[in-house]
Amino acid sequence: MTDSYKIILDEKELPEAWYNVLPDLPEPLAPPLNPATGQPVTPDDLKPIFPESLIMQEVSQDTWIEIPSEIRDIYKIWRPSPLVRARRLEKALGTPARLYYKNEGVSPPGSHKPNTAVAQAYYNKKAGVNKLTTETGAGQWGSALSFACKLFDMHCTVYMVKISYEQKPYRKVLMHLWDGEVYPSPTDRTNAGRAILEQNPDSMGSLGIAISEAVEDAATHDDTNYALGSVLNHVLLHQTVIGLETRKQLELAEDKADIIVGCVGGGSNFGGMILPYVKDKTSGKNIEIIAIEPKSCPTLTKGLYEYDFGDTAGMTPLMLMYTLGHTFEPPGIHAGGLRYHGDAPILCNLVKNGVVSPRAYTQNPVFEAAVLFARTEGVIPAPETSHAIKGLVDEALKCKETGEEKAIVCCFSGHGHFDLSAYDDYLEGRLQDYEYPEDKIQEALKDLPKFPTGL
Amino acid sequence: MTDSYKIILDEKELPEAWYNVLPDLPEPLAPPLNPATGQPVTPDDLKPIFPESLIMQEVSQDTWIEIPSEIRDIYKIWRPSPLVRARRLEKALGTPARLYYKNEGVSPPGSHKPNTAVAQAYYNKKAGVNKLTTETGAGQWGSALSFACKLFDMHCTVYMVKISYEQKPYRKVLMHLWDGEVYPSPTDRTNAGRAILEQNPDSMGSLGIAISEAVEDAATHDDTNYALGSVLNHVLLHQTVIGLETRKQLELAEDKADIIVGCVGGGSNFGGMILPYVKDKTSGKNIEIIAIEPKSCPTLTKGLYEYDFGDTAGMTPLMLMYTLGHTFEPPGIHAGGLRYHGDAPILCNLVKNGVVSPRAYTQNPVFEAAVLFARTEGVIPAPETSHAIKGLVDEALKCKETGEEKAIVCCFSGHGHFDLSAYDDYLEGRLQDYEYPEDKIQEALKDLPKFPTGL
Repeated sequence: MTDSYKIILDEKELPEAWYNVLPDLPEPLAPPLNPATGQPVTPDDLKPIFPESLIMQEVSQDTWIEIPSEIRDIYKIWRPSPLVRARRLEKALGTPARLYYKNEGVSPPGSHKPNTAVAQAYYNKKAGVNKLTTETGAGQWGSALSFACKLFDMHCTVYMVKISYEQKPYRKVLMHLWDGEVYPSPTDRTNAGRAILEQNPDSMGSLGIAISEAVEDAATHDDTNYALGSVLNHVLLHQTVIGLETRKQLELAEDKADIIVGCVGGGSNFGGMILPYVKDKTSGKNIEIIAIEPKSCPTLTKGLYEYDFGDTAGMTPLMLMYTLGHTFEPPGIHAGGLRYHGDAPILCNLVKNGVVSPRAYTQNPVFEAAVLFARTEGVIPAPETSHAIKGLVDEALKCKETGEEKAIVCCFSGHGHFDLSAYDDYLEGRLQDYEYPEDKIQEALKDLPKFPTGL
Repeated sequence: MTDSYKIILDEKELPEAWYNVLPDLPEPLAPPLNPATGQPVTPDDLKPIFPESLIMQEVSQDTWIEIPSEIRDIYKIWRPSPLVRARRLEKALGTPARLYYKNEGVSPPGSHKPNTAVAQAYYNKKAGVNKLTTETGAGQWGSALSFACKLFDMHCTVYMVKISYEQKPYRKVLMHLWDGEVYPSPTDRTNAGRAILEQNPDSMGSLGIAISEAVEDAATHDDTNYALGSVLNHVLLHQTVIGLETRKQLELAEDKADIIVGCVGGGSNFGGMILPYVKDKTSGKNIEIIAIEPKSCPTLTKGLYEYDFGDTAGMTPLMLMYTLGHTFEPPGIHAGGLRYHGDAPILCNLVKNGVVSPRAYTQNPVFEAAVLFARTEGVIPAPETSHAIKGLVDEALKCKETGEEKAIVCCFSGHGHFDLSAYDDYLEGRLQDYEYPEDKIQEALKDLPKFPTGL
C-alpha cells in the first residue's frame, strides 16, 4: 500500500467517457411526467430549454458516453483531482481505518459543480446557443456556470435569490469576475418575477421563484437555453468523473473502498462519486454507500417516494423521488446547497432499492467534524461538504470500536473559503441545531400531486 | 516539449534541502546592525525571540540545508505545487511565448507563506518553545502561522492591525478556525500598545505598532518566541522550495526559463522563486529576472540603498536595503502585502548588483491583467500576485511584437478568494491609480539613520 498522502493521476489518465448508470439500475427509472398531461415527458417538451444532445443523454441506455476533447481540455485546469489519504485525521481519531477524501474543491469555482457546467456550456455552444440562464441560491452553481460560459465565450445570466444577493456579496463578485450577469430575483425581467413583485414589492425571493424566472427567460428567447446544476440524469452523468478517477486512484494506492460517504442536496456530487460503484454493490460485493443530509431537510430519511414537481411553483416536469413536498420551506441553515425538497431520481431509485443508505445530522456536530478536519488535514470544507466529513468521522470511530481496518472514502465536494461566516457562527456558539418537525413534513406532503408511481 | 497543462511532481520529488544563496551572492551580504551600538548584531542579541537553529540559518554559509522529514511531511499537504502552462492566456494574448505559473495558492492558507511558517513552527517546537507571536496586516501571514502552529500543537498569538481586524473579518475567522488567538492592535496587553492607546484611544493601528507588540510579547515571555513572515534570510531560504520545484518541473516539460517574474512586498515569494536561478544569471546565462512592485510603494525603483530599521517604531536591527524610510506611510492599496517600506536585504543585494531588474505598476492595469487571467486560466490571483501577472502579460506582449518564443515563468504567490472586494472595486471602476510622489519620498528619506553601508 502506498505511503503517499496525495494520490495524483496524470492528465493522460483523465476518464475518456462518463459512466451512465441507467442500464445498470436495480429497477428501471420511472419517467418524468408532463404536468399538463400526466404523460411521460417527450424530447419535444424539453427542446425549448435544452439542446438535443443533453436531452439524449438524459434518456440514453449506453453505458459509456464519450467526453469530447474540448471538455477534457477544460477539465485539465483542475482534473484529475487529488485523492488524499487523511493520515493526520486518522491519527487524531486513533482509528485503524484508512480514510480518503476526493478533493473536488480544487476547481476554480471551488466545488464539483463545473464538472457539469463545462459540459452543459459545451453542448449548448455546439448547438449554436450562446446564452444560458440559471438560478442560484448560495451562488456555487451560478459561479460555476459563469466560469464555464466564459471559457466558451458564451453569455451567462444568473437569477440569484435576492436575500443571498444581498447577504453574500462575494459570490456575486465571483460571477462578475467571470463575466456573468447577475440579477437579484424576483426581477421585473420576467412575467414570473413581475407577478411576485406586484403581490409583494419587498419579496426577498426563493430558489423556486428564481428557477421560474430562469426557465421563462430561456423558454421565451430563441437564442437562450437553461442549465440546471443537479437532480437531472445528465448532470449526474457528467459528475461520474469523480468516482471513475477515485477507482483508478484507489487501485494506484493498492486499496479498495469498503465504505463510501458523501453529502446530498440534489444528489450530484454524491451521484458522481458513487454511481461507478453501483454494480459492485448490486453484484454482491461488500461495500457500504452512505448518503448524508441535514436533519433540517431530511428528504431521503423522512420524505415520501412519490411523483412531485422539481420547483416550488410547480412548473417543471414531475419526477418520482423522495420528497418533502414542493411547497416545503427549509429553515435557513448554512449548508444552503442541501436545502432542496427532493433528490435526483437516480439516487432515490438507489435508496428505494437498498443500494444507498441515507443518514441525517444536525448542524453543530457537522461543524465540529469540519473544524477537526481543518485542524488536522488543513483543508476547510464547505458547510455542505462538512456533512460528508461528519459521516467519515463517525464511520472511522465505529472502526475504532470494532478494530476493523476498513477503507472509507469521502467525496469532498467543495472548499469553505466563501463560507467563513458560517464557521464564525459555529465557533462563537451561535449555530442552532434544528430537526424539521414531523407534523410540518406531513402537512407539506399533503400538497403532493397525485400520480401513480408504477408508470 | 510536453503537451500537458499542469506539470506535477510526485511527493517523492519534493526537495530534500533548501538552497542557501548567501555563499553565491555577487557580493557578501552586509550584516544587520544593533541599533543601540551600531555594531553588527550578534546571535545573542536575537536569542530572546528566535531559536538558535533559525539564528544559525540566518548566517549559514552552507549551500544546502536539509529539510527535516517532519516539515516535508507537512509540505506534502499541498506540495509539490503545480507548475501550469497558461495555454489559454497565451492564446488570448496571441503570443508566441510559452507562459508558466507556479501555483502557490494551493496551500490551505492560500499562499506561499506556510512554506516558512511550518519551518519556523517546527524549529521553535524542537527548541521547546510552544508559543509564537506575530503581527499581521491583511491577515495572510497570521493565518499561515496559525495553520502551522496548529499542526505542531503549538499556540499562536496574532496582533492584527485594528483597521484590518474590523474590515477583514474573514481572515480573522480563518485564524480562529486554526485555533489562533487574534487581538486587534494596539492592545492593552503590551507596553507598546498601552503607550499608543494612552496617546490615542481610537488608534486604528499600523503594521509597525503590531510588530512592536508581537516582539515585546515574545521578548518578555520565556516560553514565547516571535516569527516573521518575510525579509529575513531564513524566511527566503525556506521559500526556495518554490524555485527548486520549478526547475525540476521545467526540466520535465523539456523547457527552461528565459524570463522569471514575481511580485515583491518584503521579497519572500520572489526570493523563493528566483534564488535557485541566481547562479545561472551570475555565471552569464541569458536569463532575465524581474521584480514587480506597486508604484504606490516603489521601494526598489525609487528607494535609497541605505541602512534602515525594519519596523516603523525603530526597535529592530538596522538592515542594508532599498528603503523609502521607516516612517514611510504607503497609501491604502488593495495589495496590502506589498506595502512594506523596505525589502529583504538578499533581494536588495541582487538588485544593487544587476541580477534582478525592478519594475513598478499602478493598480488598475494590474487588476486588468488579473481579470484577463481569471477569465482565461480560471484561477483568481490575489492582488499582490496580480502584480506578477501584469509583468507576465507585458513580457508575453513584448514577445508578440518581436516574435521571440521565450519561456516566461511567473510566481503565482496566492489566490484571491479572500480579496473579492478588491475585484469588486476594480470592476465597478472605484480603484484609484496612485504614484507615490517624489517629494514625499525625499522627505521620508531624510529620517534615515546614518550608518556606513560598507561595513
